[in-house]
Amino acid sequence: MNILDIIAKKRDKKELTKEEIEFFVNEYTKGNITDYQAAALIMAIYINGMNSRETLDLTMAMTNSGERLDLSTIAENVVDKHSTGGVGDKVTIVLMPIIASLGIPVAKMSGRGLGFTGGTVDKLESIPGYNTSIPIEEFIRNVKEIGISVIGQTMNLAPADKKIYALRDTISCVDSMPLIASSIMSKKIAAGANKIVLEVTCGDGAFMKNKENAIKLAEEMREIGKLANKETVSILTNMSEPIGKTIGNTLEIIEAVEALKGNMTEDIELIVTTIGAYIIKLSGNGDNIEENKLKIMENIKNEKAYNKFLELVEKQGGDISFIENTEKFKKAKYIIPVIAKKEGYISKLNALTVGKISVNLGAGRMKKEDTIDNEVGIVLNKKIADKVSVGDVLAHIYANNEEKGNIAVEDLYSAYEFSNEKVSKPDHILGIVE
Amino acid sequence: MNILDIIAKKRDKKELTKEEIEFFVNEYTKGNITDYQAAALIMAIYINGMNSRETLDLTMAMTNSGERLDLSTIAENVVDKHSTGGVGDKVTIVLMPIIASLGIPVAKMSGRGLGFTGGTVDKLESIPGYNTSIPIEEFIRNVKEIGISVIGQTMNLAPADKKIYALRDTISCVDSMPLIASSIMSKKIAAGANKIVLEVTCGDGAFMKNKENAIKLAEEMREIGKLANKETVSILTNMSEPIGKTIGNTLEIIEAVEALKGNMTEDIELIVTTIGAYIIKLSGNGDNIEENKLKIMENIKNEKAYNKFLELVEKQGGDISFIENTEKFKKAKYIIPVIAKKEGYISKLNALTVGKISVNLGAGRMKKEDTIDNEVGIVLNKKIADKVSVGDVLAHIYANNEEKGNIAVEDLYSAYEFSNEKVSKPDHILGIVE
Repeated sequence: MNILDIIAKKRDKKELTKEEIEFFVNEYTKGNITDYQAAALIMAIYINGMNSRETLDLTMAMTNSGERLDLSTIAENVVDKHSTGGVGDKVTIVLMPIIASLGIPVAKMSGRGLGFTGGTVDKLESIPGYNTSIPIEEFIRNVKEIGISVIGQTMNLAPADKKIYALRDTISCVDSMPLIASSIMSKKIAAGANKIVLEVTCGDGAFMKNKENAIKLAEEMREIGKLANKETVSILTNMSEPIGKTIGNTLEIIEAVEALKGNMTEDIELIVTTIGAYIIKLSGNGDNIEENKLKIMENIKNEKAYNKFLELVEKQGGDISFIENTEKFKKAKYIIPVIAKKEGYISKLNALTVGKISVNLGAGRMKKEDTIDNEVGIVLNKKIADKVSVGDVLAHIYANNEEKGNIAVEDLYSAYEFSNEKVSKPDHILGIVE
Repeated sequence: MNILDIIAKKRDKKELTKEEIEFFVNEYTKGNITDYQAAALIMAIYINGMNSRETLDLTMAMTNSGERLDLSTIAENVVDKHSTGGVGDKVTIVLMPIIASLGIPVAKMSGRGLGFTGGTVDKLESIPGYNTSIPIEEFIRNVKEIGISVIGQTMNLAPADKKIYALRDTISCVDSMPLIASSIMSKKIAAGANKIVLEVTCGDGAFMKNKENAIKLAEEMREIGKLANKETVSILTNMSEPIGKTIGNTLEIIEAVEALKGNMTEDIELIVTTIGAYIIKLSGNGDNIEENKLKIMENIKNEKAYNKFLELVEKQGGDISFIENTEKFKKAKYIIPVIAKKEGYISKLNALTVGKISVNLGAGRMKKEDTIDNEVGIVLNKKIADKVSVGDVLAHIYANNEEKGNIAVEDLYSAYEFSNEKVSKPDHILGIVE
């Protein structure tokens, strides 16, 4: 077997065998296949596609390229949750303490932000002291003791995926169905849960730009899950505008804390309860989705979820006084209002543009090596369907550099579109693939 | 402009602008674009193609990436000849002295063999003393003094093509129409002739496997030539079996010398006279193709062509006693007959298989760094349409390692196919694209 024949096969739109896919993944991880040969094969996969069998084989080869976590000592059913990434997506931070407060164990490894999308690990690290890289034994012990732990990817999970993902990013091959599906599922399978709930974001601010593709991706991942014996359900969420009101690490933590106290925007409530209801179902704690949603709202009201979050933060070394009084978080130097110059109903609020603005402010990273400014970001005051008069505050820009702040203000105008006619609120949940 | 956008455009089957193509070629040559990014773009070009305008822009960008030779001091019309490569193709060695003997200047830079195809430079270097890397001033002076010089690519012609070609070879992207066309034409344009005659090989032993593709390639190169103001004519030759009787450097030199003395196989005669006739025409020395062919055969008969070859070899430091008495060439240690086990008419003699056997014997190189054994190769005694009885000698294997020789014998059986019915001789010239 040699890489030239494998490349030529996919180049000519032929199906690769399991052995060929394993050969590629293993030899590339070992460094016996060069980056340029991998790049050529990945471009051929991007253009010519892969069927479900090939995608599963790619997934499992990447899963088996590194360590695999065993969570079976925690519970019979352990549910993992993953988002395909978005702008202002703090769902994991709000949802995980809720689930744990319902007695369902949460052992979650989260990712960092890259490009215009944020990452849960970066957000949690904006809480002073919160340690996202505790040893794996402590991670599992914490779950057993308080029912929850949320950390970064400290283990060497799916190193092949890490290498292939980094390459894809530099050769314009990120948004390919089989490559995204196998990348996500390889990490999820290696992370040890036997049930997987996926938040598949869809719209301008997500990798999947339309519902059709999001459904395809969800179906692809359900098939992989089925073949790998991991029940997988996807909740399709709307990422045509950012989720909630805030973008930026500290700002999002504050919004998450508010949500846990019961002050949730409509979209966060809908997304959190829907995804949460499926997590409860897959964990074997209730088949009725509507009832599950009520259980979630109940634990918000009785503050069990909020208290579980305090417990989590404390257990991982975080200073809970910041959670108890979010005014303690250091604010950005410049808080600049963005004033409406037009009147009408907001018909569009481009999440991708907003995500890019927040990266330009310093809230995200364009390259892995970039450092993040936790204080900067955007607080949205008006979102799609809101009525706006000239002079209203559309949003506030949080900046630590005045010039960057002023550029962000101008850029944000381009994210908004207005209509003279009434606009209806967008659907926040676009579908369920189970 | 950035490479990610350029890759994404071609990935999505869009047309690249001249500026984008120049950006890629220049920055890749400078090392500012990585090999893996270039590999991804080249794979996208391979799969999604390029139109004539893009192909011309790619050609000219590669031409302008290095030095360009000026041959205008030699004559008003200088004709260059190039072969797309084949097995047993010694046409250049036979033809160039003929053309020079007719008073038409020949300033030819030839290539080395790679993969299963041989190269003129390697073949000439099997003549003791022949120097293929004389300085460019000497090259031009020789042409002015004796009307001919044949050397290797000593100048830094189209370095971008060199880099891209080497990459294509390692990522299964060799046989792509726009990539082959631009690779050939960039070097030919940089080499300074204003008229170009191309031998486009076609069949198992060539990059173009069928006539349809060969015509497309020829048409593509004619268009590039037209747009670059270089009249370009292609002669399509049949490479379903090797040209002539010999494969291997010394063996081919001996066959070329025999041809110059008038002992030509039918295919060599036809190919040499046809290509030669178009060279004469393009140089402005006679529009009548049939008359031109007669002129060529005339200079074979009167030995002017043979004497011109002696003059060439001597001028480049070669020992002409080897040409005058080819028995002086050192022979391989083992000369093993391949004996027919079947009877019938030969219906196939796979040139690709024969080419690979000769490489395995040591007559070619799989990697650029490989050294070549000049003495080894194959002498074919029977070719397509020949009638064979059991016990007849099909060929002789020339080997310096007995085991390799025996393997070659077995492998050669698989190159031959037999038919019970009479088989007609294949056409040697498949068409002219002018």
